[in-house]
Amino acid sequence: MRIAVVHGPNLNLLGVREPEVYGTATLDDVNRALSGLGDELGAVVEPFQSNSQGAILDFLAEARGRIDGVVVNPAGLGHTSVALLDGLLAAGKPFVEVHLSNPASREGFRRHSHLTPAAVGVVAGFGMDSYLAGFRCLVGHLIRQHNQDPGGSPPGNG
Amino acid sequence: MRIAVVHGPNLNLLGVREPEVYGTATLDDVNRALSGLGDELGAVVEPFQSNSQGAILDFLAEARGRIDGVVVNPAGLGHTSVALLDGLLAAGKPFVEVHLSNPASREGFRRHSHLTPAAVGVVAGFGMDSYLAGFRCLVGHLIRQHNQDPGGSPPGNG
Amino acid sequence: MRIAVVHGPNLNLLGVREPEVYGTATLDDVNRALSGLGDELGAVVEPFQSNSQGAILDFLAEARGRIDGVVVNPAGLGHTSVALLDGLLAAGKPFVEVHLSNPASREGFRRHSHLTPAAVGVVAGFGMDSYLAGFRCLVGHLIRQHNQDPGGSPPGNG
Amino acid sequence: MRIAVVHGPNLNLLGVREPEVYGTATLDDVNRALSGLGDELGAVVEPFQSNSQGAILDFLAEARGRIDGVVVNPAGLGHTSVALLDGLLAAGKPFVEVHLSNPASREGFRRHSHLTPAAVGVVAGFGMDSYLAGFRCLVGHLIRQHNQDPGGSPPGNG
Amino acid sequence: MRIAVVHGPNLNLLGVREPEVYGTATLDDVNRALSGLGDELGAVVEPFQSNSQGAILDFLAEARGRIDGVVVNPAGLGHTSVALLDGLLAAGKPFVEVHLSNPASREGFRRHSHLTPAAVGVVAGFGMDSYLAGFRCLVGHLIRQHNQDPGGSPPGNG
Amino acid sequence: MRIAVVHGPNLNLLGVREPEVYGTATLDDVNRALSGLGDELGAVVEPFQSNSQGAILDFLAEARGRIDGVVVNPAGLGHTSVALLDGLLAAGKPFVEVHLSNPASREGFRRHSHLTPAAVGVVAGFGMDSYLAGFRCLVGHLIRQHNQDPGGSPPGNG
Amino acid sequence: MRIAVVHGPNLNLLGVREPEVYGTATLDDVNRALSGLGDELGAVVEPFQSNSQGAILDFLAEARGRIDGVVVNPAGLGHTSVALLDGLLAAGKPFVEVHLSNPASREGFRRHSHLTPAAVGVVAGFGMDSYLAGFRCLVGHLIRQHNQDPGGSPPGNG
Amino acid sequence: MRIAVVHGPNLNLLGVREPEVYGTATLDDVNRALSGLGDELGAVVEPFQSNSQGAILDFLAEARGRIDGVVVNPAGLGHTSVALLDGLLAAGKPFVEVHLSNPASREGFRRHSHLTPAAVGVVAGFGMDSYLAGFRCLVGHLIRQHNQDPGGSPPGNG
Amino acid sequence: MRIAVVHGPNLNLLGVREPEVYGTATLDDVNRALSGLGDELGAVVEPFQSNSQGAILDFLAEARGRIDGVVVNPAGLGHTSVALLDGLLAAGKPFVEVHLSNPASREGFRRHSHLTPAAVGVVAGFGMDSYLAGFRCLVGHLIRQHNQDPGGSPPGNG
Amino acid sequence: MRIAVVHGPNLNLLGVREPEVYGTATLDDVNRALSGLGDELGAVVEPFQSNSQGAILDFLAEARGRIDGVVVNPAGLGHTSVALLDGLLAAGKPFVEVHLSNPASREGFRRHSHLTPAAVGVVAGFGMDSYLAGFRCLVGHLIRQHNQDPGGSPPGNG
Amino acid sequence: MRIAVVHGPNLNLLGVREPEVYGTATLDDVNRALSGLGDELGAVVEPFQSNSQGAILDFLAEARGRIDGVVVNPAGLGHTSVALLDGLLAAGKPFVEVHLSNPASREGFRRHSHLTPAAVGVVAGFGMDSYLAGFRCLVGHLIRQHNQDPGGSPPGNG
Amino acid sequence: MRIAVVHGPNLNLLGVREPEVYGTATLDDVNRALSGLGDELGAVVEPFQSNSQGAILDFLAEARGRIDGVVVNPAGLGHTSVALLDGLLAAGKPFVEVHLSNPASREGFRRHSHLTPAAVGVVAGFGMDSYLAGFRCLVGHLIRQHNQDPGGSPPGNG
Repeated sequence: MRIAVVHGPNLNLLGVREPEVYGTATLDDVNRALSGLGDELGAVVEPFQSNSQGAILDFLAEARGRIDGVVVNPAGLGHTSVALLDGLLAAGKPFVEVHLSNPASREGFRRHSHLTPAAVGVVAGFGMDSYLAGFRCLVGHLIRQHNQDPGGSPPGNG
Repeated sequence: MRIAVVHGPNLNLLGVREPEVYGTATLDDVNRALSGLGDELGAVVEPFQSNSQGAILDFLAEARGRIDGVVVNPAGLGHTSVALLDGLLAAGKPFVEVHLSNPASREGFRRHSHLTPAAVGVVAGFGMDSYLAGFRCLVGHLIRQHNQDPGGSPPGNG
Repeated sequence: MRIAVVHGPNLNLLGVREPEVYGTATLDDVNRALSGLGDELGAVVEPFQSNSQGAILDFLAEARGRIDGVVVNPAGLGHTSVALLDGLLAAGKPFVEVHLSNPASREGFRRHSHLTPAAVGVVAGFGMDSYLAGFRCLVGHLIRQHNQDPGGSPPGNG
Repeated sequence: MRIAVVHGPNLNLLGVREPEVYGTATLDDVNRALSGLGDELGAVVEPFQSNSQGAILDFLAEARGRIDGVVVNPAGLGHTSVALLDGLLAAGKPFVEVHLSNPASREGFRRHSHLTPAAVGVVAGFGMDSYLAGFRCLVGHLIRQHNQDPGGSPPGNG
Repeated sequence: MRIAVVHGPNLNLLGVREPEVYGTATLDDVNRALSGLGDELGAVVEPFQSNSQGAILDFLAEARGRIDGVVVNPAGLGHTSVALLDGLLAAGKPFVEVHLSNPASREGFRRHSHLTPAAVGVVAGFGMDSYLAGFRCLVGHLIRQHNQDPGGSPPGNG
Repeated sequence: MRIAVVHGPNLNLLGVREPEVYGTATLDDVNRALSGLGDELGAVVEPFQSNSQGAILDFLAEARGRIDGVVVNPAGLGHTSVALLDGLLAAGKPFVEVHLSNPASREGFRRHSHLTPAAVGVVAGFGMDSYLAGFRCLVGHLIRQHNQDPGGSPPGNG
Repeated sequence: MRIAVVHGPNLNLLGVREPEVYGTATLDDVNRALSGLGDELGAVVEPFQSNSQGAILDFLAEARGRIDGVVVNPAGLGHTSVALLDGLLAAGKPFVEVHLSNPASREGFRRHSHLTPAAVGVVAGFGMDSYLAGFRCLVGHLIRQHNQDPGGSPPGNG
Repeated sequence: MRIAVVHGPNLNLLGVREPEVYGTATLDDVNRALSGLGDELGAVVEPFQSNSQGAILDFLAEARGRIDGVVVNPAGLGHTSVALLDGLLAAGKPFVEVHLSNPASREGFRRHSHLTPAAVGVVAGFGMDSYLAGFRCLVGHLIRQHNQDPGGSPPGNG
Repeated sequence: MRIAVVHGPNLNLLGVREPEVYGTATLDDVNRALSGLGDELGAVVEPFQSNSQGAILDFLAEARGRIDGVVVNPAGLGHTSVALLDGLLAAGKPFVEVHLSNPASREGFRRHSHLTPAAVGVVAGFGMDSYLAGFRCLVGHLIRQHNQDPGGSPPGNG
Repeated sequence: MRIAVVHGPNLNLLGVREPEVYGTATLDDVNRALSGLGDELGAVVEPFQSNSQGAILDFLAEARGRIDGVVVNPAGLGHTSVALLDGLLAAGKPFVEVHLSNPASREGFRRHSHLTPAAVGVVAGFGMDSYLAGFRCLVGHLIRQHNQDPGGSPPGNG
Repeated sequence: MRIAVVHGPNLNLLGVREPEVYGTATLDDVNRALSGLGDELGAVVEPFQSNSQGAILDFLAEARGRIDGVVVNPAGLGHTSVALLDGLLAAGKPFVEVHLSNPASREGFRRHSHLTPAAVGVVAGFGMDSYLAGFRCLVGHLIRQHNQDPGGSPPGNG
Repeated sequence: MRIAVVHGPNLNLLGVREPEVYGTATLDDVNRALSGLGDELGAVVEPFQSNSQGAILDFLAEARGRIDGVVVNPAGLGHTSVALLDGLLAAGKPFVEVHLSNPASREGFRRHSHLTPAAVGVVAGFGMDSYLAGFRCLVGHLIRQHNQDPGGSPPGNG
């Protein structure tokens, strides 16, 4: 199993900017933690970060043949980009949306994401743990999907 | 560490109704899985389900002295109830919102939750795994909070 | 054939309050008239009234195994409750929504009901006759459904 | 007692188009069933169908002196026509709005009808039974009105 | 003169929770202060608190024969509940809405109350004094109403 | 303690216009009643009325040095004037908004006031009693504020 | 000078329906009064009424070569018909919109007219006098236009 | 019969500013034309202009005892002022709203007037003729009102 | 293959009105050009124009048995008519919407068409060429549909 | 004549992804078909695809001197990008917007395009034929523009 | 060159109120600084402040003959006053809008100004420097306008 | 002091495109003028232009260590890009937003900028002077900030 982890614009600054506030965990730390969890769960992690939406779309088009799913932190693009949604749909693999912070507790324009309705699910608000939980849930989803096990998200009450 | 897990209206029917569609995992199964994970993480799980909002508020008021956080699946109440938000705020403990399904991919009125802006974070779309991931992330949050470790949700980009 | 008839909050006061205005027909009278019509149409009526949404959801969960359909007057809950919609969906039986008055001719917030899109149909504005007509139409629907007769609601023009 | 039954645009195709889907009941069948019910209830039925709104308004203006009430299936006109509302108001008789299908479960623009706030009541979603139930309820309304019996639609709770 | 004072969900925690912030006045203190003011103004106070909307509606239905008016702090229910509005209308007595805090200075969803348009008036923002002022104004209203004195709320300018 | 009482446009006509409807209480009567209550509570009342917003702003700027708080009935200005809000903020004293009538039961455009979010609180719907209750609550607020007593408006539930 | 006067749907019933309420002036009376005013102002009146929008568009297309302007009472069509606007634009003559009643004091959906932005002006609320005033103003407009006199509607303040 | 004619802000510049565009008719010319029409119709004209809303309200309060109706060109105030609406309501006389230009063909914010729903009627788009037509229609309305003649604005169709 | 070409209201004036602006191509010219293209592509053209929506619906109902598709220029009806949409759906053939002008560059109310979501596709902005291109594309669509060739509109990205 | 054909993000995957669904036509096939049609119509085709908006803007700025018009399929960018609109305006050549699918029949956010109001016209819903028809119409537009032939899009009715 | 500088309501309190927060710069200081800059740029400054909108409109009407442009800080009036916009338009001179603070970072109702669309430009957020920059830019604009130099605001990209 | 000046998409064409309309000032001219002003004010200017948002974000991330503030003309990105806002926030330096034109006088979608609420201030509408004024104001802001001088933007009235 191979999972692409896509980090959107400005996430290259994670851990570099104001470490006394945001902690010293950098994007490399996040990627290393994901790799470790991938080893534990039997999944290879392929991380990708770019500030350029075009580069992200190029990556998704190029990688779509070899990956089984995507964990994506769209950063600011999620609120405004239909092209990123289309790129994820074109990749044709299940994806999970993650956010370091809880967008619902921030400005109104952060409450909507074009990606969420098409995602398997979303994890938000737990810092680096959002990535780890989203990764873990995506792996579970892929395994259930592979096993054709209907234990996943019921469409009805909760 | 003691975590209340609150299941909102109609979740008593989980696993009973149409098992060929939703799987055979019942609410008891969810609670048992959470207990197992709690044992692993060193946290006691206290589950509570009611179809009555008043009973849920009574439970939160009664339990607030002995719990450290709440995992809540508000089911249909999350979209419409300010009283449940107020009850969670009155309990005065960090809470995490979980959903079995992904509300963003359903009817428009399911896309808004009064609870989310006040939650630590949210996990949605992964069936029983939403509970497990939310529980795990809440425990991580409480430990970081206890350690005054700023590694959690940065307010800025992603 | 067994039909639950659910009366929402405040309908216990029907016929008691200001009889010179609303007439002297009480909820018991409504239930008796429904029973009479049920006898005529070969359907057993099981009425239930509560001011508590939780109690209504408990009733639906408990009764779902023995009923074939629901006539529901949601009263004030219809405009605001997703949980009641979910409870009716969880019961898994066709339901018909009825209103004594015509909500469209009243305050704006009464014009929307969360239940209507999922209902077989709706009858509103005819006092006790709304119940009787809704009951009659539900029985007809169940018979057609049983006969797999497509004479019901065409999805196209009118 | 004389009741006009007005069928709006495109309802001339009822039963002709795709009978394996919509059943073989034609508009004539609907009118015959209404006549039969009228005989039973002591009311004469006067049906009218046109694809032209102007012709419907001409009919209402011409018939207003001899009718006691109107059952109207406005089809597509109900969502968009103030002139039809005005024509029904100008006719000056109580009217009931009926729909074969349940507009609330279809496209958003079908959820609003200019007619409903001025109608005695509405029946929707039951195919031909919507006509029969609406007719029956209108006759009941006219009898109660004639008897000055306040047993009809209370303005308050349900 | 007998006045019901209805306290909505979560108000049972008043004065218990974080007394260094909210003061140590409990709901009992509020009720005692109202009783004292009632003695002064010649009105009996009948307080009622519940976290369950159904229980509040039951109380209103049961008490409607013996009370002359209602002071209601709907807490979170005021923003979302049509059933509570209908229950107050069904009780058929003048009511006054009070709030400890000033909802207009809080989240947007707290700015609307279904109750206010039907209330005699509203008092908000003064803590326990909101109750006392609302009670005093209701008593004045009932006396003016009894005396048929038009000194009350003019519908025009201010 | 000195309290300015500001009466907005058209309130000069109070009690003059249609006394059989609005009663014969004039603005002078309101001011006299406030003075009497001020004597009782140990607060001097300084009333001001103008139909000109500019004159009201001039008054607030001139009086700000000698007053401790403001009771303001903005009349029609409250719905539309940011300048009046700014003038009250510039005066820098706590203010209470009062209305003779209950704006929520009137036209939609009367339901919003620019002043309310910045006010200590609001009293509406009780005629002259709105002024007296607002005055009494403001005095209580100033005394609590002076005593640094946190018994006032809790920000959480009701 | 020749002025078409177009009466929209249902206006054929003017003066016939409930004369004790609306007066006994019929559409013929309106047309006769306009003819008399036309004689006085030197303008020929050509009245046209139809309940059918298609017939009105046919009339405008047919009459466009011989008329100098149009007085139109669109009745219910003004709120909903782009085709009528296009027909008036296609006729290519200045037109004035008149209403017997004042739409702004009625239901919300009557407050918008597709015609008004393209009209020379509008007169509403004065019964038959709306027609007479609109006719008089249109004649004045055509004369000023003919004289290239800029005394008409300034685009700036009032 | 005595009619106040109120000209709102900036109308003092009429005819002074850019006469080659707006014509050379000044506000005095408008007032003189109204006086002439008043002589013809047996009505005295009392004109008033101010850039200050407060002064207009003072005028209405002072003049209300001696006038029978008001023609008002609110200029920019109509779109934004509830206080002017309240002042006209407080004056207690029928009023007609006039506009030199056609607000519906200008910026969106000019399409709404707080005054129109409470006016007898409105005339807009005909320059000085708007005043003359509005004056003439108001006189007709007052005569009909005096004669209790129901020939005025029917509430139904057009 | 037989294609109905439906021209909506006011299109009878095409080429007649202001030929120096719109060119001299009349509706007959459009129909002739379509016939010529039909000959080239092996499709019979059956044109129909009416100012009356009812007549258009009658035509669609009558022609539905003999046609394979519809090119429709709804003119003003597209923005406002659900009945026309229903008539096209009832005809049960693929249809293409065409516009001479580009509605998106005109008034806001022209930007929405009830027809477009149900159309195969839309061509707008190219005058007579819109008809020709729409016709050509419809023929291509019918051929692909006949050949069960999925080369048409992919539902995903562009 | 030289026409740039701009393909937006993700269109590089056309024909590659799921050929059994979307057919096997690739972007190269589209470009070849356009070249063939260009040869027929005497126009050179210059295709450009990029997933990067910046690269598209660079292309437009670079090519603007040598091209006569643009056919653009903005894909996801059309719904969200003002910069692409500005880049097309800055290129200063007529452009036509094309879509493979019919955006009006998909999610709501796909119904608006920033480009359409500034385009000559739009073709949507016909797969590769949308490109061919848009190209053909643009060539026709450029020829008519060159000939100053007003046969194009009339601004009035259809 | 003569520039009026108009200060709106409450700006008389600048520098007087809470100097430790807002600094000690008074309105006189602002005016003096503008005079100094005027001397440098060869422009006379004519300052005017009033809390009364009527007085500001009177000033603009009186001064319009002698001034070349206006710098206006509308304070609270900008958000709500069409009359001020009309007064500036009636003055007929270019105007620049300035704000001490940045309205976009404050309450939502401060984000809209009726003046901005008609202004040459806007400067906001820099305290006294907003005035100085706006003044400088207006002088530059007037000089370019005098020189008919198109170096000003291009309508296209940025 | 070092100030980055960021020019968004399409601004590379400034002065090149249609010089007879926009003048001949190029982006180089703007940068040179800024450099000259920087010399005067003691600040180094570092200009950057790209059509690619990703490149702008890369620049901000790379330059953030050596700059003290940013002047940014976001061009079309300001209306639509949360990522650019996040990039400016991540750079962690005060920024000023400038526009050549006045967005408020253009299409509605240009009236909102994601950047403005987080900016120190905004200058718009003055062509190249917008840059110069914004630069000058930013330098003033940085100096005041360095001096901890509260002379800047007061949060209250104007």
